[in-house]
Amino acid sequence: MSWEANVRRVVPYTPGEQPKLQDVIKLNTNENPYPPAPGVERILREFDIARMRKYPDPNAQHLVDAIAASYGVKPSQVFVGVGSDDVLSMAFLTFFAGDKPVLFPDVTYSFYDVWADVYRIPYAQLPLTEDLRIDPDDYKRENGGIIFPNPNAPTGVLESLDTIGEIVRANPDSVVIVDEAYIDFGGVSALSLLDEYENLLIVQTFSKSRSMAGVRIGFAIGSEKLIGFMNDVKFSVNSYTMNQLTIECGAAALADPAYFRETTQRICETREWAKQQLTALGFTFPDSRSNFIFARHSTADAGALFAALKARHIFVRYWNKPRIDQYLRITIGTPDEMEALFKALAEILQEMGDRQ
Amino acid sequence: MSWEANVRRVVPYTPGEQPKLQDVIKLNTNENPYPPAPGVERILREFDIARMRKYPDPNAQHLVDAIAASYGVKPSQVFVGVGSDDVLSMAFLTFFAGDKPVLFPDVTYSFYDVWADVYRIPYAQLPLTEDLRIDPDDYKRENGGIIFPNPNAPTGVLESLDTIGEIVRANPDSVVIVDEAYIDFGGVSALSLLDEYENLLIVQTFSKSRSMAGVRIGFAIGSEKLIGFMNDVKFSVNSYTMNQLTIECGAAALADPAYFRETTQRICETREWAKQQLTALGFTFPDSRSNFIFARHSTADAGALFAALKARHIFVRYWNKPRIDQYLRITIGTPDEMEALFKALAEILQEMGDRQ
Repeated sequence: MSWEANVRRVVPYTPGEQPKLQDVIKLNTNENPYPPAPGVERILREFDIARMRKYPDPNAQHLVDAIAASYGVKPSQVFVGVGSDDVLSMAFLTFFAGDKPVLFPDVTYSFYDVWADVYRIPYAQLPLTEDLRIDPDDYKRENGGIIFPNPNAPTGVLESLDTIGEIVRANPDSVVIVDEAYIDFGGVSALSLLDEYENLLIVQTFSKSRSMAGVRIGFAIGSEKLIGFMNDVKFSVNSYTMNQLTIECGAAALADPAYFRETTQRICETREWAKQQLTALGFTFPDSRSNFIFARHSTADAGALFAALKARHIFVRYWNKPRIDQYLRITIGTPDEMEALFKALAEILQEMGDRQ
Repeated sequence: MSWEANVRRVVPYTPGEQPKLQDVIKLNTNENPYPPAPGVERILREFDIARMRKYPDPNAQHLVDAIAASYGVKPSQVFVGVGSDDVLSMAFLTFFAGDKPVLFPDVTYSFYDVWADVYRIPYAQLPLTEDLRIDPDDYKRENGGIIFPNPNAPTGVLESLDTIGEIVRANPDSVVIVDEAYIDFGGVSALSLLDEYENLLIVQTFSKSRSMAGVRIGFAIGSEKLIGFMNDVKFSVNSYTMNQLTIECGAAALADPAYFRETTQRICETREWAKQQLTALGFTFPDSRSNFIFARHSTADAGALFAALKARHIFVRYWNKPRIDQYLRITIGTPDEMEALFKALAEILQEMGDRQ
């Protein structure tokens, strides 16, 4: 017996690499290639430093109100956290406290099984179909909760509101979480279903479409009842998760919808062009409605491509895992960054071909 | 059966009020009356906004290294979080995963039982002695972990390193957490015991002595083994808890030890003067080594004093709880704020006396 007997042992999530090198092309963590809205910078420059000595508003009301206004819901329907990972972690802790398995796809955000493990939640991973889609019929079995991203990660595949509605409708006894981290790149949010379903929780983030991964803001929108339960758990873990600057920066970003539309639109355009270029290079991929493309090459090994790109200081994401070990997840960067990627891929594929 | 059957039901912690009124004297949440070190402001003014689009360093290495250097430990002995509440919450989740009760005082930081409840950890609250001290003999029984603040909150009472050493020595099979949120106001840290005890974790915060409650930085120092287990759990909950600005601001605060010494010293001087003033007004209190005084009046009801002060826009902290319902916890503010408090108390006590 030792103190170690009381320790919770877990295998943590591995985040995408944040290389310390300068001059890398970083297409590995789905960051936005454009800076945050200009109003965010003004907050930093003008913030009264003396406010730092005081605790922030534990309700982050200024940010909550801004989100509510932007999405046309009541402030009591909004929960905010330190990135959508914090929000999702709280949602797992709050809503998946039963004994039955929580359901999610086998190929999906690889944090879901980690949260289930750390909170000792039973779960079942349901295989996506051959073409990497969710079959709603798979989610019509006994369960203690359901979660999936839409568009899914790392596939980029968007499911229709019909599919989502079918899953929620079939599960009135479970909380269904739709993780919409990538919804702003051409997807249709399930927000319109909220009036119908008290048990539907939608999670979004400022890390991708709002260019604020470094600021750490995520949020959930759902029925007042769901949000009330989440806040009870949140206030049982940490009263003051959102620092005062973060609250102000988030509200400032929301105040500039034109900038948001322009930058997300630009990324969608770059993505569509990238699809053509990758196809020309011999890649195939499910059609992406996110800010990344999940691509495999007709001949070249994904692990070898990943390593060869990294040697050229181009970072993409690769998982050596069943079903997806021949794919690369490539974040959509600026047109210049993508041009450099395509050039590097062409050269690498040429070298690989020459060696064969 | 409904989705609510799977919800974790909890009674959350209630943080001290953050009044939205202007012109209040706020002595209710143990905030520092002085602003953060000047170097912190420079970070805000000069921070490259374009960095916000990228995820922060998940290891917060810059801040971890600065803490390690300041406290003379290895970076691998330092864990950082979103305020010490985040750090303590993670420590509960990580180290108190056994079946035996975790031990802490009955009069103490009122978040401990909330964390135990939310994570379903059994616990026992051990009564402080009559003079509000910890008796180390009470902590020599079977347990799944031990936690107490030193100085204790809300009493302000400091225990000696002998007492702490005795408790840790008696409990090699438990992690012992010393919550040193208030140690910088004249206490002696248990850091010097770390070389002896692999199972001792010390938690501190930037919220009090570093004037950065609004920035949300807490940290733990312990053996590499303890910190390794905590990081595994942290990376199973949220990879990126510390935003990039917070990391830089924290490091900047640590770079100015002279400012730190000067402001904490000033608060200690104000506290000693406040002890004289409160005594003259008819209050008694355990001797405080923190930035607050836990005082009761010889005749006046604490709840009535709390309400009368609040009516004058002076906020102190009051708990309507067994053993402590005749105490006010009064944060040490600036000399001017304290002067206003003493004047108000004198008037209120006069009015109360007139009415009797």
